[in-house]
Amino acid sequence: MDDTYFMAMALDLALHGQGFTSPNPMVGAVIVKDELVVGMGYHRNVGGAHAEVHAIDDAEGQARGATLYVSLEPCNHTGRTPPCTQKIIEAGISRVVMAMPDPNPDVAGGGAQTLRAHGIEVLTGVCEDKARRLNESFVKFVQAKRPFVTLKCAATLDGQIATRSGDARWVTGPQAREHVHRMRHANDAIMVGIGTVRADDPELTTRLEDIKGKDPVRVILDTQLTICEKARLVNQKSEAPTVIVAGETALTRDDIRTRQRRLEQRGAQILGLPEVDGRLDLDLLMERLADMQIQSVLVEGGSHVSASALAAGIVDKVFLFYAPKLLGGRGIPMCDGNGADLMARATPVKDIAVRHFGNDIAIEGYLYGN
Amino acid sequence: MDDTYFMAMALDLALHGQGFTSPNPMVGAVIVKDELVVGMGYHRNVGGAHAEVHAIDDAEGQARGATLYVSLEPCNHTGRTPPCTQKIIEAGISRVVMAMPDPNPDVAGGGAQTLRAHGIEVLTGVCEDKARRLNESFVKFVQAKRPFVTLKCAATLDGQIATRSGDARWVTGPQAREHVHRMRHANDAIMVGIGTVRADDPELTTRLEDIKGKDPVRVILDTQLTICEKARLVNQKSEAPTVIVAGETALTRDDIRTRQRRLEQRGAQILGLPEVDGRLDLDLLMERLADMQIQSVLVEGGSHVSASALAAGIVDKVFLFYAPKLLGGRGIPMCDGNGADLMARATPVKDIAVRHFGNDIAIEGYLYGN
Repeated sequence: MDDTYFMAMALDLALHGQGFTSPNPMVGAVIVKDELVVGMGYHRNVGGAHAEVHAIDDAEGQARGATLYVSLEPCNHTGRTPPCTQKIIEAGISRVVMAMPDPNPDVAGGGAQTLRAHGIEVLTGVCEDKARRLNESFVKFVQAKRPFVTLKCAATLDGQIATRSGDARWVTGPQAREHVHRMRHANDAIMVGIGTVRADDPELTTRLEDIKGKDPVRVILDTQLTICEKARLVNQKSEAPTVIVAGETALTRDDIRTRQRRLEQRGAQILGLPEVDGRLDLDLLMERLADMQIQSVLVEGGSHVSASALAAGIVDKVFLFYAPKLLGGRGIPMCDGNGADLMARATPVKDIAVRHFGNDIAIEGYLYGN
Repeated sequence: MDDTYFMAMALDLALHGQGFTSPNPMVGAVIVKDELVVGMGYHRNVGGAHAEVHAIDDAEGQARGATLYVSLEPCNHTGRTPPCTQKIIEAGISRVVMAMPDPNPDVAGGGAQTLRAHGIEVLTGVCEDKARRLNESFVKFVQAKRPFVTLKCAATLDGQIATRSGDARWVTGPQAREHVHRMRHANDAIMVGIGTVRADDPELTTRLEDIKGKDPVRVILDTQLTICEKARLVNQKSEAPTVIVAGETALTRDDIRTRQRRLEQRGAQILGLPEVDGRLDLDLLMERLADMQIQSVLVEGGSHVSASALAAGIVDKVFLFYAPKLLGGRGIPMCDGNGADLMARATPVKDIAVRHFGNDIAIEGYLYGN
């Protein structure tokens, strides 16, 4: 049992906080003394104690002289809770192994420095890739001040998300659909176009069987504010708001402003945004969502929104489900827009991984440089 | 080391004959005495000795009292070569383990029966699934008297085989393209539409680095016989013929008959076929190809031919490459045609398997019931 083994345990623990920690990162901690785990903890939810505190408390006094494995550099400042470095020093921990430094350029390094100044041995970089991947949304947000965007599609093997008549029930099977709900839970916001709202009248809430999931903020792209007042999205119960994004020009029209007021009375938030070439400026929208402390956005289509998101260069990651079936002809493609004119200009997807959900296959990958 | 172990070895050996044995199946044989392999062989090419004969000769007299592992029931009739059962009996083999019975309804059972009648212990069904898969083309051909059809496509992750301008160089990387050549080698014929010929002026020959591959018969769907006389397909050197399939109606026109004669002078074969709803009757074409002893056909597109092949119900297997890139908009989809109107009517693909070729991913699966 080496450092990697216990860090992997800390990373597994961290994942238990998924969906509940934002805008904080997911963090897990394990305290090991004489090769035995004497304490474990993870950051359960924003405002609650940090992982290190849970682990030290869990160790019930056995932390003295022990090693603390923590998936992120311990904090050194008083935020919602007191600094973890203080707690670690007081507990008598003699060695701290961390997966990665605090990615926030404003606070990085402070935690490790303070610990070392108190004679604690500090090792960093154990399972760093896995730790960065775990908190990819948080890392991007604190560094780029923009949300991490995941584009999700579910298509047939021949790349169609719906038939020519618009039918999409169901492309994928129950395991894949369950995973989509887990992705909603894990993301701060979900984004769809008005076409999807009109076609499916979706709730876009999180429905999970094993845990009470968190609903994401629902962001609807609706340039002309045409959403039906009876749409589920503006009438359902959810702890998260529905934000309807409309064009600034449209919002100056009297009839649309009347509609805006009626939608607002139902609890929806209307956000006006300038248009670029007749389309909402998605790049600017990401800035606005960042202002709302939204660190992660799940784009759930349809094909126009997917194409626009890719064209705007806001997508960080794709998560594409392929159901084992063939439509055999033209339906609605994953992306509907102009797209690249030459194959050499297609957008490369890096670090591809294949996953299985029942009979469906998912390919995930990253669009670096966006 | 059990029966499964040695049969797996026989199956691996069989694969060495890929591309060279048609219309015979691929067969491998291993002779084992006291847990030691004393002889190995495989069917190298049509007209040559069967796997059992090679293995017994390889054993150089040590076959007496040994077990023969063979991937297919030994033949009991005199075809291009004398019956293998005779050779097995004469060699003094005391036990024969075979993966599967001869699938040919006209000869099935005879081999095992003869061996048993000579006091040889016979076990069948070891690694049978793998053996059937290995010779899926042969099995279908002898049972249904029709070729086994594999549909191959190479698309971006968003399901486009080319950009809107028709550019498809290159969708996949070198490893995937190399595998396509291996598929051409393994198939008796390759089928494309005239659109692909016009766009790419392809050779459709087999170019492999490790072995001298076998060119498949090239079948071109060209209803109006519009193929350019300068097309590489009708001017290149290849041991396999180019068969151009045109509509019977078109072939009654004088101008087209003149073109037909000129193409025939260049060595092309012209095959007239009736049309169904303005499209060549692919179902009937499969019958004609079977008459030519073509056991396997690789459909290499483009999108109209892929859609037609699926609509005609002639496809047994799909082999779909996905390159790690996104076009981000409409290009040329895998299948261009009407396709299913409801998702529930999409064609199911069974027994899905995922393979990796460099950075590309391939999903293969079966369309049972066709």
